[in-house]
Amino acid sequence: MWTYNAPLRDMHFVIEEVLQAPTAWAQTPAFEDLDADTSRQILEEAGKFANGVLAPINGAADLEGCKWVDGNVTTPQGYPAAYKAYVEGGWPALACDPAYGGQGLPQLLNAALNEMIAAANHGWTMYPGLLHGAYDCIKAHGSDALKTRYLEKLTSGEWLATMNLSEPQAGSDLSQVRTKAEVGPRTDDGESWLITGSKIWISGGDQDMTDNIVHLVLCRLPDATAGNKGLSLMVAPKFLPDGSRNKIRCDGIEKKMGIKGSATSAMSFEAATGWLVGEPHKGLTAMFVMMNSARLHVAMQGLGHLEMAQQNAHAYASERVQGKINGQIGTIDQHPAVRRNLWSLRSLCEGERVIAYWTAQLLDEAHSHPDAAQRAKAEDLVALLTPVAKAFFTDNGNRGANEALQVWGGYGYVHEYGIEQTVRDSRVAMIYEGTNEIQAIDLLQRKIMADGGAKLLDLLAVLEQELEVGAGVPELNEFTNALRAQIAATREAVGALLAAREAAPDWSLRVADDFLRGLGFTLLAWAWARSARVALPQVADAWYADKVKAARFGVQWLLPEANYRWQRVMARNAVLPEIGCN
Amino acid sequence: MWTYNAPLRDMHFVIEEVLQAPTAWAQTPAFEDLDADTSRQILEEAGKFANGVLAPINGAADLEGCKWVDGNVTTPQGYPAAYKAYVEGGWPALACDPAYGGQGLPQLLNAALNEMIAAANHGWTMYPGLLHGAYDCIKAHGSDALKTRYLEKLTSGEWLATMNLSEPQAGSDLSQVRTKAEVGPRTDDGESWLITGSKIWISGGDQDMTDNIVHLVLCRLPDATAGNKGLSLMVAPKFLPDGSRNKIRCDGIEKKMGIKGSATSAMSFEAATGWLVGEPHKGLTAMFVMMNSARLHVAMQGLGHLEMAQQNAHAYASERVQGKINGQIGTIDQHPAVRRNLWSLRSLCEGERVIAYWTAQLLDEAHSHPDAAQRAKAEDLVALLTPVAKAFFTDNGNRGANEALQVWGGYGYVHEYGIEQTVRDSRVAMIYEGTNEIQAIDLLQRKIMADGGAKLLDLLAVLEQELEVGAGVPELNEFTNALRAQIAATREAVGALLAAREAAPDWSLRVADDFLRGLGFTLLAWAWARSARVALPQVADAWYADKVKAARFGVQWLLPEANYRWQRVMARNAVLPEIGCN
Repeated sequence: MWTYNAPLRDMHFVIEEVLQAPTAWAQTPAFEDLDADTSRQILEEAGKFANGVLAPINGAADLEGCKWVDGNVTTPQGYPAAYKAYVEGGWPALACDPAYGGQGLPQLLNAALNEMIAAANHGWTMYPGLLHGAYDCIKAHGSDALKTRYLEKLTSGEWLATMNLSEPQAGSDLSQVRTKAEVGPRTDDGESWLITGSKIWISGGDQDMTDNIVHLVLCRLPDATAGNKGLSLMVAPKFLPDGSRNKIRCDGIEKKMGIKGSATSAMSFEAATGWLVGEPHKGLTAMFVMMNSARLHVAMQGLGHLEMAQQNAHAYASERVQGKINGQIGTIDQHPAVRRNLWSLRSLCEGERVIAYWTAQLLDEAHSHPDAAQRAKAEDLVALLTPVAKAFFTDNGNRGANEALQVWGGYGYVHEYGIEQTVRDSRVAMIYEGTNEIQAIDLLQRKIMADGGAKLLDLLAVLEQELEVGAGVPELNEFTNALRAQIAATREAVGALLAAREAAPDWSLRVADDFLRGLGFTLLAWAWARSARVALPQVADAWYADKVKAARFGVQWLLPEANYRWQRVMARNAVLPEIGCN
Repeated sequence: MWTYNAPLRDMHFVIEEVLQAPTAWAQTPAFEDLDADTSRQILEEAGKFANGVLAPINGAADLEGCKWVDGNVTTPQGYPAAYKAYVEGGWPALACDPAYGGQGLPQLLNAALNEMIAAANHGWTMYPGLLHGAYDCIKAHGSDALKTRYLEKLTSGEWLATMNLSEPQAGSDLSQVRTKAEVGPRTDDGESWLITGSKIWISGGDQDMTDNIVHLVLCRLPDATAGNKGLSLMVAPKFLPDGSRNKIRCDGIEKKMGIKGSATSAMSFEAATGWLVGEPHKGLTAMFVMMNSARLHVAMQGLGHLEMAQQNAHAYASERVQGKINGQIGTIDQHPAVRRNLWSLRSLCEGERVIAYWTAQLLDEAHSHPDAAQRAKAEDLVALLTPVAKAFFTDNGNRGANEALQVWGGYGYVHEYGIEQTVRDSRVAMIYEGTNEIQAIDLLQRKIMADGGAKLLDLLAVLEQELEVGAGVPELNEFTNALRAQIAATREAVGALLAAREAAPDWSLRVADDFLRGLGFTLLAWAWARSARVALPQVADAWYADKVKAARFGVQWLLPEANYRWQRVMARNAVLPEIGCN
């Protein structure tokens, strides 16, 4: 009943028509061999894998969960075979460097792949979820010896990777990390370290899919200072290069709300051997390479859940027959309350896909554009867009799935219809890789206010180009007017917050979440305007006409929330009392 | 870790100080023996039961769930014993008629009881959940023979009851019900019927708590017309008066998202013996007695979940230590993002409790006020307030629990911390007893537009009295101004919708959900103004000062959502297209 159909045509629309990526590829040496046809073939194959291999085992895995016996995890039925197929398909290598066996394809296609696999089976996706981040991290900060040892194995997916940050007393606040490393024996890879400590919430801390697991571990060297600046990053494999078992143990797995196919592990390191990645005490810098890559991946999970919810809700509503308001019998997709729900999901999905893929496209520009100034500019935009995409999309993914559930009525609450699992699975994405509240503070304080709004104004200038492009087309006025209003509200809010930095230093902290959602809607207004501009000349085709309808629905029905967010942002004098006595 | 402390002082504040119920009781013959002290004793005992008996078995029951073997359900460990304690405490009888063994206490106290037991253990509460509704239904529509047979058993709780409405093809739309009844043998209770059909989503369709189960079943007599008007209501017990087993079978139980301790059953009636309740073909009228009572009960579940979420989030945040924004270490309740979350929950809880208890108080007036005109007026207000309370509170309960989860970070996603169960449990309340979308349409079309807005204007006139009472107190201006603006927005929206009834007949259907939330905020604005007025003279006491802070927070931070809702309501020309091709 619960199926996934990768929305390939929608993806092509965004990649080829809205973002015109093939044109950009042709002008980028790194991607000059790539064209629209090849991109379509890749996405079609990815879609087959998501639809045919991952989606069918998603529901059963939720009921079965993982098993932990004496330190060893067994993943749900079908998980290891699906991973084998994933590796054989070459999917881990998609956007990796050919120097290490990768295919060197754009992050844009990797983002589309991630959207599909997360939509089809979020729990399973957690296993390869950190592969690319670990690859990026070792590639950027590892010694040559570590690169040689790990990068090909990670590129091929022969080994999987984990990220060991949290400890019981250190969740959002990594300065509390206590795991320590002491000097170990000298090895071929340089000085080794002996790591001791406990880590929690380690996705895939143990599993039965790969022969080895590459753990990246945040810890403190003997001479470390307290706080964030005393953290170092180690790589510690489950099996050491000599084949012996490292002193790393999976102490148990969590009973969670969702993603039950993912083994969320508590890990013990008991003088486990590890090697430093990057400089001593600069572990957070090295780790953030991994985090940023992971954040865009998480954003794609939010979009994937929304897409999954919308396509299944649409299918169900077009088959479920009940009495209509006027007394006649019909499918419930004719009922205004259901229609509004379905269009909300769809309009959000389509707008978010433009923003998400654009972010991935900018990531490609930041890495591969021939011009250094363009690379720097793209990197600034990515820095700004990543926390918005992570928090806004995962909020909307969970919220949207929860709203979609209502389409099924009572059936929605029952496991076999699938949507309740999507609600549960999607919830975690608002927490991990930095809670959405942390994303909001990162966005407003570090990414926007720290440079006096410079990067944000650059972003708004890019969005404003859409106003110019659409200026001569009266049919676009409804979209460009909405975008203009959103840009103005964003600018006003940032201006006010910046002006009050000294006088009201807490203001930005109080309203960071609303600000992030406000900016999310500004980006949506841009995405809808851009989609409508591309689709309008083709509305004789009902498929394109729907694109315009979805964009119009967004402007008319969803943007009013933005006003509410900006109103809360601008309420400088709203009181946020200390917590009271109750 | 997950505990419930019945918020008795908050309850007393609302009952005694805000609503001044003891004064009303003294003037009502039915309640003239009741005073504040007795009310406090009753609630204290109810609180002990909820805190000490129900809450401790809630988490384990979620993991254990119900078992179904060959038609028989076993409920989770501790459930039957808790029910026995509930019966021995006399709780089912609280608001029942002394003529049938009841205690004749106000619905107001019953509402507080229901808030507590739902907060402590929603799954368990499902079993006695329909007891009072079945009692009301048989009392209002049953023959004397049926009353004699069932009312005392239901009052005492010796037998439990179910409501059999839904069928696979008939969820929100009861006109699709196919279960039929044919003429059966003549019995002492009049003509019996033989009922045949399948019912789904029957809470407590089978259980191991009581010797007998009283099923109320919606079905069609042989001469029934199609549609809603052809439905009749039957009572069909699991065991017949002669002690033999009736032909009713529990075919299985659902795997659900939450309330896993509740056996949501699929039922077969195979020429099961039943007796008509009320007139032939007037089953819906009889059933609606049960539904309205059940809707207020469901509203209390929404409030209970919100209270449970807020008190546990508060407790956790006051203990969890992480780095603060300024680099120092402290408990996370000092962090602005957490503080805003906690105050949102608390402010909503406190406002909703005033609305909920007021609705219950009006229900008491509707039944027991000495003056017939007052009874009629109270009944009109209840008719209007019930769908708002059901939909608004259950939306907020689930939404609030979901927001509260964020306070725990990663721990929130783990079962043992409790909040993820509250998110899952609370979700069902948005669906059952009429989905929230159905509540919204019922409110706007049937309760408001059908009488040209007369009942709503009466309600607004009652709310406006608060403006007059507060007129002379400058400290109240912030609250009365907000209330005045909300009342004006409500009036404007209804005026516009009524004026466009002919010209834009679909408009109200498109915006019913937003309208309901808008009116919910109008009621909150009233509740906060009223609470603030009562608390302000006592702010030297920090407990009362917090009441004012919660009300102010609501006005400043939560009412902006109302503007957004009214904006969507007023968007008469916003397009809601037919569902497209994707």
